[in-house]
Amino acid sequence: MISEDIIKEISIKTDSKILLLVIDGVGGLPLDGKTELERAEIPNLDNLVSRSICGLTDPVGYGITPGSGPSHLALFGYDPLKYIIGRGVLEALGIGVELTPKDMAARGNFATMDSRGIIVDRRAGRIPTEKNREICALLGKEIEKIKGVKVFIRPGKEHRFVAIFRGDGLNGPLSDADPQKNGEKARPARALSSRAKKAEEVVNSFIKKASEVLKSQHPANTVLLRGISKVPRIPPMGELFNLSPAAIATYPMYRGLARLVGMEVLQTGDGIQDELRTLRENFAKFDFFYLHIKQTDSSGEDGDYEKKVKIIEEVDRYIPEILDLKFDVIVVTSDHSTPALLKSHSWHPNPFMLWSRFIRVDGVNRFTERDCSKGSLGRFAAVNAMALMLANGLKLRKFGA
Amino acid sequence: MISEDIIKEISIKTDSKILLLVIDGVGGLPLDGKTELERAEIPNLDNLVSRSICGLTDPVGYGITPGSGPSHLALFGYDPLKYIIGRGVLEALGIGVELTPKDMAARGNFATMDSRGIIVDRRAGRIPTEKNREICALLGKEIEKIKGVKVFIRPGKEHRFVAIFRGDGLNGPLSDADPQKNGEKARPARALSSRAKKAEEVVNSFIKKASEVLKSQHPANTVLLRGISKVPRIPPMGELFNLSPAAIATYPMYRGLARLVGMEVLQTGDGIQDELRTLRENFAKFDFFYLHIKQTDSSGEDGDYEKKVKIIEEVDRYIPEILDLKFDVIVVTSDHSTPALLKSHSWHPNPFMLWSRFIRVDGVNRFTERDCSKGSLGRFAAVNAMALMLANGLKLRKFGA
Repeated sequence: MISEDIIKEISIKTDSKILLLVIDGVGGLPLDGKTELERAEIPNLDNLVSRSICGLTDPVGYGITPGSGPSHLALFGYDPLKYIIGRGVLEALGIGVELTPKDMAARGNFATMDSRGIIVDRRAGRIPTEKNREICALLGKEIEKIKGVKVFIRPGKEHRFVAIFRGDGLNGPLSDADPQKNGEKARPARALSSRAKKAEEVVNSFIKKASEVLKSQHPANTVLLRGISKVPRIPPMGELFNLSPAAIATYPMYRGLARLVGMEVLQTGDGIQDELRTLRENFAKFDFFYLHIKQTDSSGEDGDYEKKVKIIEEVDRYIPEILDLKFDVIVVTSDHSTPALLKSHSWHPNPFMLWSRFIRVDGVNRFTERDCSKGSLGRFAAVNAMALMLANGLKLRKFGA
Repeated sequence: MISEDIIKEISIKTDSKILLLVIDGVGGLPLDGKTELERAEIPNLDNLVSRSICGLTDPVGYGITPGSGPSHLALFGYDPLKYIIGRGVLEALGIGVELTPKDMAARGNFATMDSRGIIVDRRAGRIPTEKNREICALLGKEIEKIKGVKVFIRPGKEHRFVAIFRGDGLNGPLSDADPQKNGEKARPARALSSRAKKAEEVVNSFIKKASEVLKSQHPANTVLLRGISKVPRIPPMGELFNLSPAAIATYPMYRGLARLVGMEVLQTGDGIQDELRTLRENFAKFDFFYLHIKQTDSSGEDGDYEKKVKIIEEVDRYIPEILDLKFDVIVVTSDHSTPALLKSHSWHPNPFMLWSRFIRVDGVNRFTERDCSKGSLGRFAAVNAMALMLANGLKLRKFGA
């Protein structure tokens, strides 16, 4: 991959418009000999692919199954091994919290501690979500600030919550404040570098105060914090690639990831048709659109092969509407594979197609994993996709004399 | 790519002979469905390719359009992101100046400055080339040395010239001595590191003296200098690859690039037949030949699809003559693509074929971009071509125990 410095130096502003359509987890594995994409009837994508160039992308590396953070960063043109998004940050993005550079976020569990300080149940008997909300509200009221640092508590499902600490001088890395298994003593967070001392004090003081506030809330009488992390400093796409980028996504996590790289996150509805409307209405205002389709991934995670096929077919029906907008560059791909067979993200590379006026069409005529593997782009690291999109939009000057 | 240290350690001298035939900018884009290569009738290249292995190369990276410097360095086996050739150096090579390691070179403009020191015309009304030569001669006569540093001025076209500063202790990086637009104050070069202080003094003192000498030459009454740069220190091919390399090229820039990596640059004429004669006459004396065909690139830059096709066909007619020489390894490829459609270098990968006695012929039987994309070499970084050529010439020992 080309360094950010070089890309920044050679990228220029032009009128051309780029669409990055991410069909989340679209890559799959065969069931009765055919992957979800191979089973689906997708005449519009097949037609587009026959006028495109194709390949297979690896988000992080051969054999590596990526989380949504690294796999999206790679597609957005950022080295996923350089910018690490902590679990706390991702969890906060996932429930729609807007994080600032001053924020430190942690995944929290309500838990049960006995009188000797032993954690006897790391999940507090999986308290009902309703109870969770109640306790979070209580905590939020009782603990607003610690040593000048603001504290926000946001409920998740059952025993899960997110804690956000907002203030100056909070730095990681910190170890988890979690014994990881039942029957061990509660464990404070530990600063893993001298820069993290203040964060250590704030986090541990929060845990102590929370345990006092929750004393009478047994089984949820203490908290565990994991993945305590800050938002990484990521140069925005506008600065690095000279783009005015916009994101259209229905799920908070993807909206949050887009915000992290400086995209404008557009208001939209819950369905694909809502996303399409948002795209049409904002077409004139931006030169790069990230359009995210979630349900392919969800049905893959559910192991629902048939549903994933149906959603792929639904996406296909919207392709003509997308083409009508007259983008200069269109990429259709995925962030990672989510085979229904595995019910999870996987390490399999992603089908990738790029259409523009400046390509040598490579003869692939079906948008499937196996067909794309025969395309002229070959197998490549997903992080290169951004330079390809920019080049095809004539947005990169010559490198070197 | 394999590090230079490793290649140096395992490369050995053998009698085998390698030809690297660079058909500059040969890769194109379709016009009425066919690229320049696909349109051309090239029975000899097609025959050779059917006995070769093929692939597509990226000079610098996916989506990156390279200048001639980085794209050639990659083909010569040097990391194009490690060895940066400045604009001044390339310009000097382009007009045939032989640079030494003590030289700093700059692209110059004659310009018009008003009495308040404002640059009112960065191109001095595009003075005639004849006038340019006259002023360069005058400058050369009046300014021979500055602080012990020799100064050479070489005219280009219209308002353009090249300045060379030759002496000890000249180091970059320096900022441009150019306000970049009309109506702004003349701007001295600035040392961008403490090592560049002496160069800063010399360059700015030259600009001052030149303005005095040119006082009465309105509109060419001052000079602007850009891309002030030194020749990068590049280990010669003889040392790194144990080769005795020779270059046959008609254009000064490519002759200069070859000299930078330690090739012997052979005298030759203007046409392809002259280059072939030079190749034949020197065949016994070297074990590596870089043979450069320029006109494919020029016609691509001119947007002249038909002419580019004709030149490809002309090159094809010389292939039997080349085969008669009985090279052990033959590579036919390009440094970068120059599609007539874009009238410029482009980011598209290069068709690449390699013939030797030690290959697994891969079934490609036309030398085109699309056919090569199906070859067994796949899509790869051009910098790897050198190790492939050496290996096929049995010039690389085993790596590791």
